[in-house]
Amino acid sequence: MPRPFLDPNFIAEETSAKLAFSGNRLDRLCEEREANCLEKALADRTARGFGFTRGRVLIDFTNGTPRGLFTLDELQKFRPKLDRTVLLGFDGEAPRLAVPLGINPDDENCVLPEGVKAIDYRSIAAQSLLGENEMGQMAQGAAYLAWHSSARFCGRCGAATVVQDGGIKRYCSSCERETFPRTDPVVIMLIIRGDKCLLGRSPHFPPGVYSALAGFIEAGETIETAVRRETFEESGIRIGKVSYQASQPWPFPHTLMIGCLGEALEEEIIKDDGELEDCRWFSRDEMRAILEGKGSINSAGEQEFFLPPKMAIANRLIVDWVKSK
Amino acid sequence: MPRPFLDPNFIAEETSAKLAFSGNRLDRLCEEREANCLEKALADRTARGFGFTRGRVLIDFTNGTPRGLFTLDELQKFRPKLDRTVLLGFDGEAPRLAVPLGINPDDENCVLPEGVKAIDYRSIAAQSLLGENEMGQMAQGAAYLAWHSSARFCGRCGAATVVQDGGIKRYCSSCERETFPRTDPVVIMLIIRGDKCLLGRSPHFPPGVYSALAGFIEAGETIETAVRRETFEESGIRIGKVSYQASQPWPFPHTLMIGCLGEALEEEIIKDDGELEDCRWFSRDEMRAILEGKGSINSAGEQEFFLPPKMAIANRLIVDWVKSK
Repeated sequence: MPRPFLDPNFIAEETSAKLAFSGNRLDRLCEEREANCLEKALADRTARGFGFTRGRVLIDFTNGTPRGLFTLDELQKFRPKLDRTVLLGFDGEAPRLAVPLGINPDDENCVLPEGVKAIDYRSIAAQSLLGENEMGQMAQGAAYLAWHSSARFCGRCGAATVVQDGGIKRYCSSCERETFPRTDPVVIMLIIRGDKCLLGRSPHFPPGVYSALAGFIEAGETIETAVRRETFEESGIRIGKVSYQASQPWPFPHTLMIGCLGEALEEEIIKDDGELEDCRWFSRDEMRAILEGKGSINSAGEQEFFLPPKMAIANRLIVDWVKSK
Repeated sequence: MPRPFLDPNFIAEETSAKLAFSGNRLDRLCEEREANCLEKALADRTARGFGFTRGRVLIDFTNGTPRGLFTLDELQKFRPKLDRTVLLGFDGEAPRLAVPLGINPDDENCVLPEGVKAIDYRSIAAQSLLGENEMGQMAQGAAYLAWHSSARFCGRCGAATVVQDGGIKRYCSSCERETFPRTDPVVIMLIIRGDKCLLGRSPHFPPGVYSALAGFIEAGETIETAVRRETFEESGIRIGKVSYQASQPWPFPHTLMIGCLGEALEEEIIKDDGELEDCRWFSRDEMRAILEGKGSINSAGEQEFFLPPKMAIANRLIVDWVKSK
């Protein structure tokens, strides 16, 4: 049951709404939660939860369509940590939970039931194993659980903190400080100049992959300033006009990707060798060929360049720019 | 000396660049910092610092133009905490510092020198006591210092953390975790419908003040989704198209305000009584009159409604919308 304020009919044309992890339609009811909301949710027979373990989520493949939501009874055999479970919100009346599991799928003694696999978030999105709504809920859960594991002690006084209101905040009874989940804003920008766009290659990328430049927004910066600073640091290129395109929740660990176009004022690249292995301009025709799998071929007879996967906002920025003319 | 990537000539038309706290042009050199960068900066005779104490900054009024930057010698008498000082970046070659002070201006025994006052960030911006560039640097320092005071202990293991690289990160030697300054993204949206805009009044506002609705972006949300959820929660109104307008660093304590227009799909307001004292539609003519100080008069003979101050992005969203027709 979609939330009335997220009726998909009027967001169909929105770029942000087309991105992986952005389809979450739960009603979080953050303002209306009571102290015992998690206990109530755990006792609710309509509750369903994602099982999280080490950056992965359980997926049940036994019934054709991959399934990420389990009953609490089903999760029992995976050693659920109910005290660390987060109430994500409600699907209609039904509670939706993020349940950290005590199992370690990397342990050779850990045998998952036939047809159930623990799959990392990136692969779930890349293979569209879940629908948009559930993928968004999973991303919300991943972000919350990552934050909780890094906020167990009070940063101000060092005392242990306790979870409140089903996981939407933590409280330090020693210094009475409340802390809230952290979301780190990141700018990711397709830098363009006429019929060319600028892409960089991090040494961590798979072979041949080039993507849009990106970086964390720092304290005291606007979105536009961060685009200019990061681009200048990584490529030595100054940027004039910056235009916001779309945003995407990115659960690695709890990031908000803010996608922009930036208009370069110059072409000469002075690459930051510490961050990038390569940085170069691609023509629109070159990009179009790469998108069609007909990009330039290297000496091994393979296509030389690749784009980030469709789930990434960088892919969308590039595709939309290529198609804009 | 302005940073080459922030040449004001090509950002003059940008809304974000016109907002308070957004004019910071320091070169942060975050990627190039060495372990002893703070010590080197403190030993540099060209270093200048802002003196911070309890949400305020020292301003020297003795020479006509208010001055926020002090030499380290000048700051000596205010009990500077040099080990907690943050290296904000460089103005040309000159280090720029945020220096927390041991004095408490609320203590009656604390007498500041003639002509020196400790003034809160909001008043500094509202009265334009500093130039845009220095106001932006002050906002950066305020955000960093607020974060440091809330990150002294490791959230993962509870051990004390140490400052590294002049304050751009902290490190836990117990569990080897690095933490970075936190920036909380917030959406603030002027909701419009035809020739009307929607404003709300929080009980915390000064008498008569109405402003744009706002709220923190939560884990797993896009900017657009957060605009829709917050607007629906506070006013019961559903939003169609959302368009990004501008962003602003907001040092209370370390926020990034993301300003949007949102197109309402309906007019009936169902107010969240917990958050808002009032919420209502204003016509463009009504807003224009308020902007000109000719708004409607109450029974006490005073103008009834007021807008947020010019320093706030909400003011800019409203003014730009009023002038757009």
